[in-house]
Formats: sequence, structure tokens, C-alpha cells
Amino acid sequence: MPLRRIKLTIEYDGTNYHGWQVQDNAHTVQAELENAILRITGERVRITGSGRTDTGVHALGQVAHFDTNSMIPAEKFRKALSAVLPLDVAVISSEEVDFDFHSRFSATRKTYEYRILNRQIRSPLMEKRVWHIKEALDFKVLNQAAEAFLGTHDFSSFCASGRSISNFERTIHLSEWSERQGLLVYSVCGNGFLYNMVRIMVGTMIEAGLGKRTPESISDILTEKNRNLAGITAPPQGLYLVEVHYD
Amino acid sequence: MPLRRIKLTIEYDGTNYHGWQVQDNAHTVQAELENAILRITGERVRITGSGRTDTGVHALGQVAHFDTNSMIPAEKFRKALSAVLPLDVAVISSEEVDFDFHSRFSATRKTYEYRILNRQIRSPLMEKRVWHIKEALDFKVLNQAAEAFLGTHDFSSFCASGRSISNFERTIHLSEWSERQGLLVYSVCGNGFLYNMVRIMVGTMIEAGLGKRTPESISDILTEKNRNLAGITAPPQGLYLVEVHYD
Repeated sequence: MPLRRIKLTIEYDGTNYHGWQVQDNAHTVQAELENAILRITGERVRITGSGRTDTGVHALGQVAHFDTNSMIPAEKFRKALSAVLPLDVAVISSEEVDFDFHSRFSATRKTYEYRILNRQIRSPLMEKRVWHIKEALDFKVLNQAAEAFLGTHDFSSFCASGRSISNFERTIHLSEWSERQGLLVYSVCGNGFLYNMVRIMVGTMIEAGLGKRTPESISDILTEKNRNLAGITAPPQGLYLVEVHYD
Repeated sequence: MPLRRIKLTIEYDGTNYHGWQVQDNAHTVQAELENAILRITGERVRITGSGRTDTGVHALGQVAHFDTNSMIPAEKFRKALSAVLPLDVAVISSEEVDFDFHSRFSATRKTYEYRILNRQIRSPLMEKRVWHIKEALDFKVLNQAAEAFLGTHDFSSFCASGRSISNFERTIHLSEWSERQGLLVYSVCGNGFLYNMVRIMVGTMIEAGLGKRTPESISDILTEKNRNLAGITAPPQGLYLVEVHYD
């Protein structure tokens, strides 16, 4: 077969992984996928994801691509890979794409969700799936805070240090809280996200929801471009990469 | 303090338990609760549950009671027990009840849910939480089948053998399928349930939903009082004890 490019959409439970990206001596989702591809094609490939996810972060629709000479029809990779992957990773869809498709550079938007359990007692059935907050959150204030992120802003204040990037400007298309099945769910869609950006946004909104800062302060924090002014980084287990969008 | 009776409502992830009931050398939810009570009160008590759940079956609202001389206010047991219980068990509420309250004998109804993921590929995030069925299920047929269980019937055909009981008659008040968050969810409420009854009901309805039997056949199976005529026992991980009702 001629070389082809395959696009994969991947669901995973991030609990037992050191995140997405291959690292020495660490259990990562990317490494599991590369091992699975080796097992079914005999080829050692490097797969490229739309972006990293951190330790404990989950994905309902991570996207990655790789190139292969394998005879396996593109749509069969889904089943074949899911059959050999560990139970906490599955390929939800597989398709052949043009070589100008790139899981990271072709992505135009990403949607994340952050799930919070706001009740007195922790939930055994949602352990490692939500951020459990005991103190009552003000839902209206959460949404006032979320609104402040809409549009194009410099997100320097909402970015963990340690990675060398120059452009901190991102555009947020959707930023809202809803109630679903007893959870508070924050949905956010943007043209890109900085390191820990969603988790710092959530941590800051939660501080507003708890009355520790005003929802109006979010705009000031954006303007100041100072990470120290924003709130805590929300824990990873509430975060889900829901969808990577391509035009 | 005088002897008091405490009612507990309990949530658990049944994945790592040999069910509810204390058995020699087995990890059970009841044993974990009794250990937790010992740790916080110093008393070795026997707790009584509303009924057993099998290995792998989950609970959102199991109910149990126990008697204690402890000074701990009734409503504080919730927090104190949840603090020492393993992360896959939590006490959702605790309250003092009269001595004529009995978690099992005072229960007038129970509500269960059975959750099915009906798609091609398994879900890493719902592993051990749902029954994954790849073949397309006919939602309308599932509900036709569910309707046949409503009312009072002899459920001998929907009961696993091995326990000595004499009365197989049970009344079902609610029996319906709904779609929720990408899952097919069966909700059933009745005045009591025989051993494996919900799981055999679900297994039989699923066979109808797959076109392997007609929804009309359910009524005949009830009439015949023969376990061999009903369908398979659905696997435990899709079953949730949702609520135990008391008048």
C-alpha cells in the first residue's frame, strides 16, 4: 500500500496515565497508541496529537494522526486498535485524511468540559472524574465570571509558566456553566488554549463562586497579564478534552 | 448515651467488592462499613442492609441501619464514616430512626437503574459502569417489553435459583427505558425484587431489542414460571440500586 495518513479520535480515562505525551519511563496515552499500532501493523510510528493533556485529565475526543504503509483499511483501525489497547483507552473513529491534515496545526477550535460535584459528601462513583467542592457555589456568579472570558484576550494571567511561547492571545467562543445530572459543568470552546489555561480559568471562577473574589475582577486579571492575580489551578481529574474541531 | 438506631444512606462503586454482604475472606461493602463504625465508635456492630447487591453492582442509595451507644450525633456519622471509608464507599446521609425502623423489613419499594452503552466501541470512561452492547437496539421494542412487567406478577421465570423463598409475586410500579447522556437507561421500581430479577429482566428485554424474541413473549414467560424461558442475566456492572423507599 502507498503511504497513507490516518486520523484517530480517541477516548481515554486519564487517571492512570502521565498524560498524553511520550516521556522516558512514563506510562502515557501516546505510548500506548504507538504500541498498539506496532502490534497490528508491525510498524514503529510516531503519532502526533492535537495537543498534550496532563496527568489525570480525560479525553472524550482527543485527535491524533500517523502515517502508515499498512494494508489495513482506514476505518478498520478503530476496531483493531481498540481490541489491543488497554481498557482505559479506545479509538472511537479512524479515517484516512490528506497529507496536509495535521492533528495539531489544522485544528481550528477545541472544546473542553470541566465537571464539578458540589455537595457535602464525595461521590464514590465519580471519584477521579470530578472536582469535589463541599462549599456551596453561586451558579449565577460562576456564569457572570465565565462571560468575562468570551472574545479575544491576552491570557498570560491564565497560563502556567515553564513553556516558551510568545503569543498569549486566544479567542474564546463559548464559556458557560450548566447543571447536568447533579454536576456543575463548565463548557469552553476556543481557538487554542495555553498550558493549564482551562484549569486556571476554572480555579479562578470557583473562587468567585465561593465569594472569595468578584466576577468583575476577571476582566482586570486579564488586563494585568500576571499569573499571580488569577486563582488556583483546578485539579486535573475534572477536565475533559471533548472535541477538536477542523474546518 | 442510650442505645440509638442510626439509618445510613450509602453510595458505592461495586467494582472492587464481593457485593454487599459480609462473607468469610471476602472484601464486602458491609464489612467496610462495620470496620469504619468500629474505628469511629470503638463498637463492633452488625449493620443490616435493605438487601444484598452482587459483586460489581453499584449503589447510589443503599440503606442500612445499626444500633449504637456512641455519643456521636446521628447526623455526624455521615461525615465521620465517609472520612475513614475507602474512596469507593461513602455515607450520603445519616439520621436517627425509631427502633421499629428496619432497613429491610420497613422498605416498601426499591428503585433500580440499568445502564447500557449501545455503540460500536467500548467507552474507557464508562468501563465497569455500563453494559456495552455493540449491536443496534430497538428502543421502541425495549419499551414495549418493559411495559409487560408492570403490575403484579409471579416472577419465578425471572429469578435465579439457589435461594429458598416461597413467594415469587412482586408488583412493579415503574418499568421504562429512557435515553440519557448517550446511554440507554432502564428504570424500574417495585415492592421487592427476587435474586438477579432485574438483571434477568434486562437480559430478556435486550434479546427483544436485538430482535431475538418478541416483546409480546414477555407476558408468556411470566405465565410459564420457568427460568429457562427467560433471557440471559445481564452483567452486574450496569446495575445501580438507586433508592430504597420507606413510607
